[in-house]
Amino acid sequence: MLTLYDNLDSGNGYKVRLLLSLLGQPYRWVELDLERGETRTPQFLAKNPNGRVPVLELEDGSCLAESDAILWYLAEGTPFVPEDRLARAQVLQWMFFEQYSHEPYVATSRYILRHLPPDHPRRTELPQRLERARAALEVMERHLEWRRWFVADRYTVADIALYANTHVAHEASLDLEPWPKVRAWLERVAGEPRHVPLTTRPG
Amino acid sequence: MLTLYDNLDSGNGYKVRLLLSLLGQPYRWVELDLERGETRTPQFLAKNPNGRVPVLELEDGSCLAESDAILWYLAEGTPFVPEDRLARAQVLQWMFFEQYSHEPYVATSRYILRHLPPDHPRRTELPQRLERARAALEVMERHLEWRRWFVADRYTVADIALYANTHVAHEASLDLEPWPKVRAWLERVAGEPRHVPLTTRPG
Repeated sequence: MLTLYDNLDSGNGYKVRLLLSLLGQPYRWVELDLERGETRTPQFLAKNPNGRVPVLELEDGSCLAESDAILWYLAEGTPFVPEDRLARAQVLQWMFFEQYSHEPYVATSRYILRHLPPDHPRRTELPQRLERARAALEVMERHLEWRRWFVADRYTVADIALYANTHVAHEASLDLEPWPKVRAWLERVAGEPRHVPLTTRPG
Repeated sequence: MLTLYDNLDSGNGYKVRLLLSLLGQPYRWVELDLERGETRTPQFLAKNPNGRVPVLELEDGSCLAESDAILWYLAEGTPFVPEDRLARAQVLQWMFFEQYSHEPYVATSRYILRHLPPDHPRRTELPQRLERARAALEVMERHLEWRRWFVADRYTVADIALYANTHVAHEASLDLEPWPKVRAWLERVAGEPRHVPLTTRPG
């Protein structure tokens, strides 16, 4: 059976939990406490030298890190990754956009606001991170202006990757009111069969 | 013919130029001046709403952004992307590592040092960015301890993605002396047939 090393509050981990639910794939779930350093132990660093969740452990003990690489691994050969060569690369384009231009701003702002005390020095990062978060949401809004899904006119891992942290943007103090296409797309994702919310503890 | 919108000093653009050279694939090269705002014009934003190079334009006018997605598009079906399902996902794992944990530290430090004046406020970002750059190099060193290439015991787009900014780390004030396996791997990449240096102007 697959094992997912994860943290319930992680948007990156939620991507994998959501896809596993959509695929109806059973798995073992191991929650790590980031604040207690459980991703920095020698045992965990042997699974991911970069010391981050999520990590997917396969039945033979091989480990795979990076949420969007895990999505690709699980979804290749299913309807969640298109077969067309350009569409596949476009899915990856939006996943790299997510990791480079979205996650460090939306998800990191959410982390700072939820997990660090009000007088923590990292609070000074918020104005710049939130400005870039708004720029990422603006890029998404323009792309969705005449599209229902990010790529190939259907629900793919690109949508899953972007949904995970966008749907909790309010917890990063971002009001999605200026981006109606993004809001309609969030509802579309949440309305898909076998959808599970971020806070659903697996198993 | 393919068209690459790019900037000669861009490590992300260099990834694509290097792969196109390795594949022996001819292309048209269009250089944009980032400082003159040429990636922020309406014409360019129509090609990539995120306003970044590189962008690959296909013969039918479709555009693809994000350097690592472009690598995947060009390399699927060639020896630079493995066929095995897990190895493919491992290639993506290292490409996402590169974009999330390496490029914002190695490449952005290099950019700040080369392109911003000595009294620019962004210079204050350098200590933290360089610390994280060293952490990324340490992860690479550990992975290369008993491997010649990042994935599947051969030269793949994961190596290309990581090589592009690592081989100019000295221009980000990073001395690679503490990471001998990384240095040996850089030499291995540079010794491959059809290799081209970052500064080679295409065409």
